[in-house]
Amino acid sequence: MNAPDLKNALSQDSEVAHLMNAMGLQAKVASAQVARASAAIKNKALLALAGLLRQNLAPLEASNQLDLERATAAGLAAPLLDRLKLTPKIIETVAIGCEQLAAMPDVIGEIIGMKEQPSGIRVGQMRVPIGVFGMIYESRPNVTIEAASLAIKSGNACILRGGSEAIESNKALAALVQHALTAAGLPADAVQLVPTTDREAVGHLIAMPQYVDVIIPRGGKGLIERISRDAKVPVIKHLDGNCHVYVDDPCDIAMAVKVADNAKTSKYSPCNASEGLLVARSVAAEFLPKIGAIYAAKGVEMRCDEATARVLRAHVAIESVANIVLATEDDWYEEYLAPIISIKLVEGIDEAIEHINKYSSHHTDAIITRDHIHAQRFLREVDSASVMVNASTRFADGFEFGLGAEIGISTDKFHARGPVGIEGLTSLKYVVLGNGEVRL
Amino acid sequence: MNAPDLKNALSQDSEVAHLMNAMGLQAKVASAQVARASAAIKNKALLALAGLLRQNLAPLEASNQLDLERATAAGLAAPLLDRLKLTPKIIETVAIGCEQLAAMPDVIGEIIGMKEQPSGIRVGQMRVPIGVFGMIYESRPNVTIEAASLAIKSGNACILRGGSEAIESNKALAALVQHALTAAGLPADAVQLVPTTDREAVGHLIAMPQYVDVIIPRGGKGLIERISRDAKVPVIKHLDGNCHVYVDDPCDIAMAVKVADNAKTSKYSPCNASEGLLVARSVAAEFLPKIGAIYAAKGVEMRCDEATARVLRAHVAIESVANIVLATEDDWYEEYLAPIISIKLVEGIDEAIEHINKYSSHHTDAIITRDHIHAQRFLREVDSASVMVNASTRFADGFEFGLGAEIGISTDKFHARGPVGIEGLTSLKYVVLGNGEVRL
Repeated sequence: MNAPDLKNALSQDSEVAHLMNAMGLQAKVASAQVARASAAIKNKALLALAGLLRQNLAPLEASNQLDLERATAAGLAAPLLDRLKLTPKIIETVAIGCEQLAAMPDVIGEIIGMKEQPSGIRVGQMRVPIGVFGMIYESRPNVTIEAASLAIKSGNACILRGGSEAIESNKALAALVQHALTAAGLPADAVQLVPTTDREAVGHLIAMPQYVDVIIPRGGKGLIERISRDAKVPVIKHLDGNCHVYVDDPCDIAMAVKVADNAKTSKYSPCNASEGLLVARSVAAEFLPKIGAIYAAKGVEMRCDEATARVLRAHVAIESVANIVLATEDDWYEEYLAPIISIKLVEGIDEAIEHINKYSSHHTDAIITRDHIHAQRFLREVDSASVMVNASTRFADGFEFGLGAEIGISTDKFHARGPVGIEGLTSLKYVVLGNGEVRL
Repeated sequence: MNAPDLKNALSQDSEVAHLMNAMGLQAKVASAQVARASAAIKNKALLALAGLLRQNLAPLEASNQLDLERATAAGLAAPLLDRLKLTPKIIETVAIGCEQLAAMPDVIGEIIGMKEQPSGIRVGQMRVPIGVFGMIYESRPNVTIEAASLAIKSGNACILRGGSEAIESNKALAALVQHALTAAGLPADAVQLVPTTDREAVGHLIAMPQYVDVIIPRGGKGLIERISRDAKVPVIKHLDGNCHVYVDDPCDIAMAVKVADNAKTSKYSPCNASEGLLVARSVAAEFLPKIGAIYAAKGVEMRCDEATARVLRAHVAIESVANIVLATEDDWYEEYLAPIISIKLVEGIDEAIEHINKYSSHHTDAIITRDHIHAQRFLREVDSASVMVNASTRFADGFEFGLGAEIGISTDKFHARGPVGIEGLTSLKYVVLGNGEVRL
């Protein structure tokens, strides 16, 4: 869709407008019911969903087959076809995910910080659902179940808008979700899938503050930028993952090599893969040849400042020198999501922090160090959603952080920051318990 | 300023544009310094500021006199002149406020929820400043010191844009703040006052996401709506305070009368004053005549549904009947900020919750009850920033809630909800402590 489409070409009288308005109203009504549902009821729905997924493997695969055939005919690229595919293994994984969510403690209604004030009133904060979230995502149909199950557990209603290429799979999955909700005594409208692939629907979904409290987009940067610009409600978003590893002096060089290798090469496509490596000048001669040899052997292109290139070229085997190229200013900003890494020598912790705060996307950055003061400064002063000492940036993930589930990663500072789990879909309201106190 | 001015009439080449850009950049640079400042340094600045305020009573009053003379000549109304006035008593109050902030624990850098994960990494969250906030406010010059001192304590930089009628007072106060910052070894640019009264400055301030992380407007509803609509960064805002007291059955009638009286009549202008009174039908005959007599005696107009009017007219003295009028649908939505209250009979807790969730502005609502289950349902199901049992809505306030200071009250669900203190000016980032762990 072209950028102006999203915002301007919205007719309030079209069929899609009426559809989205009805879905919004239904979600709003359902949200009040699911918000006050007991933990037992919500868990019952999650377990029912897990059961239904396993019992409906064949129909789910049949619906998915329709999407795959259409996509194949349309000439969709192989990696996208792969993402679209709903295998028994994927269905089992999301079913287990529902069971794990059911087993987690329920955070809705918890009251924190209750303290008596001088007036006699006691004041605390209660965790409550946000209300209604809208989720906009691409290809992978399993996101439908991940989003639906998080909505149920967190007591929110949601409106899901999946990719048009997965519409049949998503409809089949959403029908199971509504079946599970009804079986547990919850309103089916608590989880609704937008049934049309008309692009106008997105424009309406992000502009209904009367019904939708927050939008969570997952997809390409272009989509997320357009949605953020045009949305009339808050957006939980994550644009770039330009993550860094800084190898400090002093550090355990073997650990630094292991982490720098893992952070870059364990997978190239995730947002938490490292795109930049900073090295304290005083450990460069010892560290760089070791990591350079590994990167070269794995075919990773190293875009280096001159000092790094000098050290690497002097030590790395002749046949690997082709992997070493000089970086431009643009490289320090780049999220490659590919076997490429930028490498720069820095004088020490000050320059490392300065570089990261200037060039990183504020997603995840790590220091490898033995120096306690450097570690503390890095944690405090690096302005990123996740800051790490002696660990791979690849750990920036809801499951690895113990959130139990993840609906996305936020690089904003407002509300949710970093991996967003159930708490990110809640808000804290003040609760006051009195005994007839009045204000003088 | 006309609505379109704010958004469209912004020249990026004007003198004001250059000024605001320079202030933004300076704030951003200063924010990194103040974010890493120790608690001791920040408290030193706050205590220095308290001292400077007390030492400069005469010059402050002289600057304030210039504003008062200009405002008087311009024919400003008496209540506005009153707000503009900087008396020794007000200066002492804000000086004490600075000292109280200095005495509060420092929340910046605190780490919560640190837990070891199956991979071996330990994951927690660290409280850090948001960065730079922009504050836009009207008349009262004491807000300059309140905002500046909250910025210092919370480790944020701020750009303050006060009302044009208070410009000389604000300049004098801001000069003292910068003096105090410098004396403590902090950058003066951590707190900057926009030195021009040109209205274009506001348009730039709210549209610099590269420098300013959040905007906090305080003022009339029109101003806040325009800023929310045009801002390119998050806004911590509060539009309406349509607060309710619901008198449940069973309840302590004497307590209900005391609270309903206080919530409406202790002050008419604050946003936490009650504008609506809901009464369970079964206690109406006992409760309504008592509260009706008090409201009538205090000259409060009662806008009632028919059932309420019938009960009141049957019991209240003849001379007070003039205070009883029939409510229209609009009355249930109204924030009067005046000696007027809407009163409605409801069947019980269900109708009360439904009415409040439909008509209230989600600010503060209270139930007066002895029923434990009703109390719990009210707290959980009423979708407002502050929900209260057996206490006056007038308590919805940062100081009364023990936040130590308040920069505003948020009726949004995102990020800060309810009275916003220092924590509302911070964010939580994830911190990960490892021992060389990598992701498999």
